[in-house]
Amino acid sequence: MNRGILALVTSIGCMSAGSIQTLANAMHIPHLFIQRSPAGSPRSDCPPTSRVPGTDDYTLMVRPPIYLNDVIMQVVSEYSWQKFIIFYDSDFDIRGIEDFLDRSSQQGMDVSLQKVESNINMMITSLFRTMRVEELHRYRDTLRRAVLFMSPATAKAFITEVVETNLVAFDCHWILINEEISDYDLQELVMKSIGRLTLVRQTFPMPQNASQRCVKHNHRINNSLCDPKNPRSHQLEITNRYIYDSVLLLANTFHRKLEDRKWHSMASLSCIRKNTKPWQGGKSMLDTIKKNGVSGLTSFLEFDDNGSNPNIFFEILGTNYGEDRGRGVTR
Amino acid sequence: MNRGILALVTSIGCMSAGSIQTLANAMHIPHLFIQRSPAGSPRSDCPPTSRVPGTDDYTLMVRPPIYLNDVIMQVVSEYSWQKFIIFYDSDFDIRGIEDFLDRSSQQGMDVSLQKVESNINMMITSLFRTMRVEELHRYRDTLRRAVLFMSPATAKAFITEVVETNLVAFDCHWILINEEISDYDLQELVMKSIGRLTLVRQTFPMPQNASQRCVKHNHRINNSLCDPKNPRSHQLEITNRYIYDSVLLLANTFHRKLEDRKWHSMASLSCIRKNTKPWQGGKSMLDTIKKNGVSGLTSFLEFDDNGSNPNIFFEILGTNYGEDRGRGVTR
Repeated sequence: MNRGILALVTSIGCMSAGSIQTLANAMHIPHLFIQRSPAGSPRSDCPPTSRVPGTDDYTLMVRPPIYLNDVIMQVVSEYSWQKFIIFYDSDFDIRGIEDFLDRSSQQGMDVSLQKVESNINMMITSLFRTMRVEELHRYRDTLRRAVLFMSPATAKAFITEVVETNLVAFDCHWILINEEISDYDLQELVMKSIGRLTLVRQTFPMPQNASQRCVKHNHRINNSLCDPKNPRSHQLEITNRYIYDSVLLLANTFHRKLEDRKWHSMASLSCIRKNTKPWQGGKSMLDTIKKNGVSGLTSFLEFDDNGSNPNIFFEILGTNYGEDRGRGVTR
Repeated sequence: MNRGILALVTSIGCMSAGSIQTLANAMHIPHLFIQRSPAGSPRSDCPPTSRVPGTDDYTLMVRPPIYLNDVIMQVVSEYSWQKFIIFYDSDFDIRGIEDFLDRSSQQGMDVSLQKVESNINMMITSLFRTMRVEELHRYRDTLRRAVLFMSPATAKAFITEVVETNLVAFDCHWILINEEISDYDLQELVMKSIGRLTLVRQTFPMPQNASQRCVKHNHRINNSLCDPKNPRSHQLEITNRYIYDSVLLLANTFHRKLEDRKWHSMASLSCIRKNTKPWQGGKSMLDTIKKNGVSGLTSFLEFDDNGSNPNIFFEILGTNYGEDRGRGVTR
């Protein structure tokens, strides 16, 4: 847009987001940030970016804060686990579960941590090669209770491999936690595992009033996305749902601002021009976005005073030796 | 330098180093990178920067690769620890000990991980408030064996606090690992702790030929820095020693290149000029730096083919109820 940038929607990792955040703050451009985790691994909190005190933060976190620490503590406590192993893939930033590790350490739980390399076959072969017999027995016992922080793809490959090498038996109970597990992943994971499997993922409640579903805030959502019976709506990645809703929210807010006729001058953000000044209308635009909400593909998208989305719903799905058992928990 | 940048010496964190590294590769400028850890905490490996395949890497790692994983495994195995707790300060990136956690998990060790917040007093108060009596007893037992990954300052404050609140007794054995522990820190840590304390830090062996000490490669090193009896030489931070040696190495290399009379044109790196081209002489300069070495304040500074410094020396210092015991281990 050669007349300037009025708002940013990004779906990137923490490192890149830090630079964009600094730019957004400097130029007073509202920035809707949809955190994307690398390679489908669970998200970890972005490290706080250094801010100039007293200045406004123009970044709004579209996805809710990381809730894995709380959920996994709740699940593990419910099953009264005292000793278990945590497996994580190489893309997962383990700093994301520091809080859970703190609490489990204080409660005297015995937690082992182990990284799962991308070459799972080689990793397991080296386990068998380096471990003595009694060590392997003890390790097998530890593997009876495991929590997996990994992408659905890695989880599938890893479960297949440990089942084939007889590292786990029917008496094992594994928990996989990842916001993004599709129905297809779910079926496959249940097929591949032999013991008990518990899956924790993010879910989006259906709007209660079905007739209003596809017309929201004067904006018509594509029927194929909005209809829960349509399989395409289930294939949408969570980040893409949030992108859709963010753009919808921005469109609504621009519409409202134009109707208000209190519209400020456009931003003149350009890398070539010297003396680029912050956008005068940025603050008021940011406030309007914060005050508004939109009912979209991620249920209701809104922001609290910290610029974070308070609406989190997740579901805990359990299998018991192959049988499916559904249970919904909301917070 | 308005005629261009011929080499970079940086002493920064991983995040900033990534950008400089990209720039150095693009402009063919040799970059001597001295990793600085935040707030005196132990270093963790920098995440690999995304590189264009087939291109040269112009960054040389002046500090040796992180060796904490190996050293701590060696120490813990030597003491035959099976159950212990790891405390780390909030500036330490726990991804730096993933390898150690993997191996301890495979060996069936019970390792707890706990972050030490900057407000230690509040943290311990909350422990006492939230834990039940039997939990506190079990926790006290765990605290008998601990490994600390933290800055000397945080370690001092933490040890003082746990001693004062009777969380540890005379039968405890704690290990502090940090490349940078000064002699002064060492004295204070020994004073404050009540049980047994083992300290692991980096050390620099003295040159064997004392007469050559202060004249190296035709370059005279400031006597006050070079004399081991001079207290000022002990106060130098490790990063500063490496900066000194890096500049010395660069000076020697430039001198050699000028004598060779094969000197290429200067770099024309400027943010203002358009069409900035990479430096023609960068590759040959980089090769000359790699081939050379310098005997300086960090013993011998040289690089292997990966651009890393292979010379690591560390020492393990142990106290036994107040008595000092020195022991040197090299690898």
